[in-house]
Amino acid sequence: MGLGLIGGSLGLALRQNKLVNAVIGYDPDWRTCQLARQMGAVDETISDLTGINEADLVVLATPVSTTIELLPTVVRHAPPRSVVMDTGSTKTEIVHQAARFFPPSGTRVFIGGHPLAGSEKNGITAARPDLFHNAVFVLVLPSGVESVPSALLALLQAIGARPFLLEAAEHDRAVALISHLPHLIAACLASTVRKAQSPEILRSLAAGGWRDTTRVARGRPALWADILLSNADHLLPAIESLQEQLTMVKDMLARQDRQSLHLFLERARQFLIAK
Amino acid sequence: MGLGLIGGSLGLALRQNKLVNAVIGYDPDWRTCQLARQMGAVDETISDLTGINEADLVVLATPVSTTIELLPTVVRHAPPRSVVMDTGSTKTEIVHQAARFFPPSGTRVFIGGHPLAGSEKNGITAARPDLFHNAVFVLVLPSGVESVPSALLALLQAIGARPFLLEAAEHDRAVALISHLPHLIAACLASTVRKAQSPEILRSLAAGGWRDTTRVARGRPALWADILLSNADHLLPAIESLQEQLTMVKDMLARQDRQSLHLFLERARQFLIAK
Repeated sequence: MGLGLIGGSLGLALRQNKLVNAVIGYDPDWRTCQLARQMGAVDETISDLTGINEADLVVLATPVSTTIELLPTVVRHAPPRSVVMDTGSTKTEIVHQAARFFPPSGTRVFIGGHPLAGSEKNGITAARPDLFHNAVFVLVLPSGVESVPSALLALLQAIGARPFLLEAAEHDRAVALISHLPHLIAACLASTVRKAQSPEILRSLAAGGWRDTTRVARGRPALWADILLSNADHLLPAIESLQEQLTMVKDMLARQDRQSLHLFLERARQFLIAK
Repeated sequence: MGLGLIGGSLGLALRQNKLVNAVIGYDPDWRTCQLARQMGAVDETISDLTGINEADLVVLATPVSTTIELLPTVVRHAPPRSVVMDTGSTKTEIVHQAARFFPPSGTRVFIGGHPLAGSEKNGITAARPDLFHNAVFVLVLPSGVESVPSALLALLQAIGARPFLLEAAEHDRAVALISHLPHLIAACLASTVRKAQSPEILRSLAAGGWRDTTRVARGRPALWADILLSNADHLLPAIESLQEQLTMVKDMLARQDRQSLHLFLERARQFLIAK
């Protein structure tokens, strides 16, 4: 469900490696469905969710808020013994909702998933079969679920992903720091430069460092607003922690404190280059 | 003078394109001198600055503070009618000092230079002849200097650089925003994550976005402390402007204000993708 970068790439990976009998795709946009079929990301597409009634695995590759909206429909149509997984960038709310709709007593299992394989590129046209190759694929178990179904684990490994089990809160706190905060910062950097007196000169001078530092903020605003808002609880303290760092550095600069600034940069660098 | 990434690459570019009779290199580190000769970045190396007495062009590819220290020695040994250029990342103090040592009445001309071709890589081993290809090469004239010597301009164009004339203050304000602020931010991000309770988990989850956003902070701490401190006047208001953006975004997140956050991300994106 959802034939964007993640859904489309998953379809390509599963089909090209002949890992499943068939990939049935769904997307509200008919052009996207057409493209997905042409690209070979799906065997066929369906026009509504009732069509999932023979699926062994249902993957919700939709924005976090859409996934939550879709859960009641999915649980109604997914067949017994099917596994349902999402691929959203935040996990606390999804697995909380999933625990309601997929009770441990039922025969359908929900597993939270998050492949760390996104990009500033998006949409079916950016999909590629090797997107998950060597990518960490976080898996989160809703309360009451004891383990990841081995068939799902095998499938993820077969597409080259590295499954990584985490608690929902631990995941969300971590991605707040290593993904959502960098995204916000990149957008704030772009916004700061945009408001400067001479953004044109700035654009002429921008080199590789600027491009790399701000690349993530080229991502789709609607998708990212969704992600950031759904992780506000973990993101807010992360922003505050960064603001403290900034204030500390501002102070070093104002005092021309070379020794402290050098040590600060050195520690940051050591952390970045450590394996 | 200074056989690091910039000095070494300039030597390679000038020699491989046969643009000068000879490149004479100087570096306080004898191993670097040896490497520079072996790589063909220089024709020969000299062991002290008196050896520049037959140079047509003297390039100071040293850290900003070193360049300022070297100026009196360079002006004493550079021959009449020679052109002296630095390649430092900040320009206000250098051209101010240069105006003292290279009076407009003299026959030696100083031109401030800044190739926007740096990298997190550094040292002679990272040097390459095409480093300046398509790179903006900022030129700054000290007060009293009317124009860039045409021979220098031709040389820069011949190595593929794009000369770009700017006022010192305009340059320093611009690089504070598009280079120094992103560098500081990357270091602050690394530092924030380093101080988190589980930096190991964070490191396992870090993907392409994290790598790109923090890449610049892998640069040499001593060099960067020098750059940042020499541009503190322009960097401090830039940090404050970024902090205001962060506070604004924090507020949007706390209020779950989807519309404002979406607009904020959209504007940042539009600025980044505009040509």
